[in-house]
Amino acid sequence: MQQRIAIIDLGSNTTRMIVVGYIPQQTYKLIDEVREAVRLAHGIGRDGKLQEIPMNRAIKTMRLFHQMCRGSGVDTIVPVATSAVREATNRAAFLDRVEAEAGLRFRVLTAAEEAYYGYLGAINTLNVRNGSVIDIGGGSTQVTVVRQRAVEASVSRPIGAVRLTDRYVKSDPIANKDCKALEKAIAAQFDDVPWLTGQGGELAGIGGTIRALAEIDQKLRHHPIDRVHGHAMAAERVYELYELFKGLTVKQREGIPGLSKDRADLILAGSAILTDVMRRGKYKRILISGQGLREGIFFEHFMQQHSPLIPDIRAFSVQNLARIYNYEATHSAKVRELAVSMFDQLQPLHGFDATARELLGHAAILHDIGNAVNYYDHHKHGAYLLVNSPMQGFDHREVALLALLVRYHRKGEVSVDTYADVLNPGDDVLVAKMAAMLRLAEFLERRKNQVVQHIHVEIGKNVRMVTQAAGDTAVEVWDANRAAGLFRKAFGCEIEIV
Amino acid sequence: MQQRIAIIDLGSNTTRMIVVGYIPQQTYKLIDEVREAVRLAHGIGRDGKLQEIPMNRAIKTMRLFHQMCRGSGVDTIVPVATSAVREATNRAAFLDRVEAEAGLRFRVLTAAEEAYYGYLGAINTLNVRNGSVIDIGGGSTQVTVVRQRAVEASVSRPIGAVRLTDRYVKSDPIANKDCKALEKAIAAQFDDVPWLTGQGGELAGIGGTIRALAEIDQKLRHHPIDRVHGHAMAAERVYELYELFKGLTVKQREGIPGLSKDRADLILAGSAILTDVMRRGKYKRILISGQGLREGIFFEHFMQQHSPLIPDIRAFSVQNLARIYNYEATHSAKVRELAVSMFDQLQPLHGFDATARELLGHAAILHDIGNAVNYYDHHKHGAYLLVNSPMQGFDHREVALLALLVRYHRKGEVSVDTYADVLNPGDDVLVAKMAAMLRLAEFLERRKNQVVQHIHVEIGKNVRMVTQAAGDTAVEVWDANRAAGLFRKAFGCEIEIV
Repeated sequence: MQQRIAIIDLGSNTTRMIVVGYIPQQTYKLIDEVREAVRLAHGIGRDGKLQEIPMNRAIKTMRLFHQMCRGSGVDTIVPVATSAVREATNRAAFLDRVEAEAGLRFRVLTAAEEAYYGYLGAINTLNVRNGSVIDIGGGSTQVTVVRQRAVEASVSRPIGAVRLTDRYVKSDPIANKDCKALEKAIAAQFDDVPWLTGQGGELAGIGGTIRALAEIDQKLRHHPIDRVHGHAMAAERVYELYELFKGLTVKQREGIPGLSKDRADLILAGSAILTDVMRRGKYKRILISGQGLREGIFFEHFMQQHSPLIPDIRAFSVQNLARIYNYEATHSAKVRELAVSMFDQLQPLHGFDATARELLGHAAILHDIGNAVNYYDHHKHGAYLLVNSPMQGFDHREVALLALLVRYHRKGEVSVDTYADVLNPGDDVLVAKMAAMLRLAEFLERRKNQVVQHIHVEIGKNVRMVTQAAGDTAVEVWDANRAAGLFRKAFGCEIEIV
Repeated sequence: MQQRIAIIDLGSNTTRMIVVGYIPQQTYKLIDEVREAVRLAHGIGRDGKLQEIPMNRAIKTMRLFHQMCRGSGVDTIVPVATSAVREATNRAAFLDRVEAEAGLRFRVLTAAEEAYYGYLGAINTLNVRNGSVIDIGGGSTQVTVVRQRAVEASVSRPIGAVRLTDRYVKSDPIANKDCKALEKAIAAQFDDVPWLTGQGGELAGIGGTIRALAEIDQKLRHHPIDRVHGHAMAAERVYELYELFKGLTVKQREGIPGLSKDRADLILAGSAILTDVMRRGKYKRILISGQGLREGIFFEHFMQQHSPLIPDIRAFSVQNLARIYNYEATHSAKVRELAVSMFDQLQPLHGFDATARELLGHAAILHDIGNAVNYYDHHKHGAYLLVNSPMQGFDHREVALLALLVRYHRKGEVSVDTYADVLNPGDDVLVAKMAAMLRLAEFLERRKNQVVQHIHVEIGKNVRMVTQAAGDTAVEVWDANRAAGLFRKAFGCEIEIV
């Protein structure tokens, strides 16, 4: 049964609601998202009290969000509040007002819970097995260390982009003295966390500061994939950008492509935090997560009594996508089997690793999804759909590789130019050879009837592929031979399919 | 019940098979297409006999096509042959061989049937009410005059691109004398068809020659829509290209972007035929059809005992597309109702015609289809899906207008640059105003629960939109006011929604 859940997250700066449709443990899809810049923490004084005007703004927005849920078939509403409410001295009175006037009883997350749900959102949508997750918010920062996808250690510190800006950024561009004080304050927060030093491994990053850095990086590089989730950024790039921000006034920063106006002031302190943690932890890159706290809470509901970790997010994501476009399961499974069998038997000729093998399998499952758009050019439509879908668990290089394999499963000579910016050296060869195998597998399944059951590959001066069939394979052998040009070019040898 | 039909068309040059999945009278989708350059008419001599080698090639291909159908769930196979077989003196013997060796009994179409099915394919996929359909093949050319979508008159002549090239194109580039002879031969075929002269109206065109002209035209103009069906070409452009071909050798023509090598020779004679008919008929433009004979035969099966004309192909095509992406029917219908109501009440301010109104309605039905790809940027994905779908009955300008409306139903300032090449002067204003209305209608349906039932528009110095509701509309009024910026800009006046 399809269910619909709304998760509302009342933060220091923005408040957001996501609505997700789902069938527990099977499939989910974002249905709606609303955000409003409530700026709840605005003007908090020495007494730690939320102010009247921001509170009224928050209550009005919560009322609207609640109404939005009521009219649109939402079964469950989960409203949570983070540091701004958690630390307010008038928190109880505020929460009572929200309940009385907007009809929503907010759950106030502890710092540890905030870190946990951020971790859960990232770990279920990015391929991080061993490493860390950092979440830089307006009021606080959490770092969580992950071993075999489980939490190993976690720290939450009351420093965030808004809070530090308010306290330390008093000159524009920032004076050397102020900058030193800012960096010192950040360092002081982490100096007593010995396990952070030299932690290494994959680092996943959550929050507005980190998303903004990714957007700037993408604009500077003419990045080919229009979304931040799954984007990878080298540590040097983060340090470079931090240096850039230090030298500019807020006004000048507003001119940086990809940086929104309302973050031009906060980005300096936010990237100072990230710079400290990345240097300290010796992380080589950061993998950006567009999913965090709200999604983490969602996954708890989605997985129900089970562990909230989706076991294999890449396979899950591929299946989810394939189903949306009514893929032909039996045909796709056979193409995968044939392609992977070719991959294994041709191992001496290509030498690719297990990740390449896994990607080839995923591409085989997804190769025909573009048919939903149009039979003509369905290879191109499939690549478009793939690149624009929430491919959880894949970084952008991997998304590009999958898109290229889908693109070239039929028609045309391989060119990786469109995605050159996110590829590694040698990926052109990887794509050419894997596309050649996928194309042959596809044409050996020309009638989608599994008549070619297995293949046996003989490697000599040339390659000979012997089909083991459950019937007449004249069509398949004829068409596979027509489609073998890519193979000849990629492997530099003749091939014969019999 | 989903059915699957294969239609095989054995022509003079190419033989093609399409496989279509369909539910009679409801929905259909191209599933597969195969083509093979059999060149059946190759080497036919004075005795009018098909030659042994081409016949063997054809039989081999037919056997493969037949096998392809058997393995892939096709219920019905309809094999038809056109002029090459029709006019062959050894036709009976050939057909018997095909039946014995490939298991297919071909139906040989008469010239009139060939014209009729081409007409049916075009008329069910292009918006031609009154006008003509021309089909230029390798061996013959058909012109059909259409009144209220029905056949009024039809002529078939044994001149085609292949036949005329064989007979008249004896110099390269063509000598003036040869060219004169070619043109004279064509004119002689139509001089006795008085109704062709000054016929006028919309002209739809079928066949490889015409598709090739469209592809050349698109490449020359950086055309934004990657398909020929629905492409419109001015008569002057056709004449210009014909002149261009006359001045070039076949080798030189091979360098023309968009022209495939195997048509570089035939395109001269083919465009000579089209030039004659367009000049004679005083047609101002030609609308290219990617659908012809095979699709015509399909539509007869699709509509079963009913008239083979799909009543409203535009509405049919829009519904078909919306269903593929699981659109929310009730929500979309309400958005359409509100948008069209706004359109009508704001008529004094925009003055747009009934076609604009119709397009706004179609865009409203399709506005959310991009959600199938990703909630984020679903307006952009929707535009992509629309542009790449077989939008039957719309020319490329209309496809672009629909795509722009879907694109701007949420987020961003209107820019029509992407499609500038296919738009008319003034279309930027048309899109800006219609997108503004669609966006308001969408936000008045913010919760997709039809709470806003009607709107009443008051036009004074500014515009005031009064909602008539079946409940609390705080959410809708709040969000519609947030989304009214586009309206203010497009109409140059204030708007208040209450």
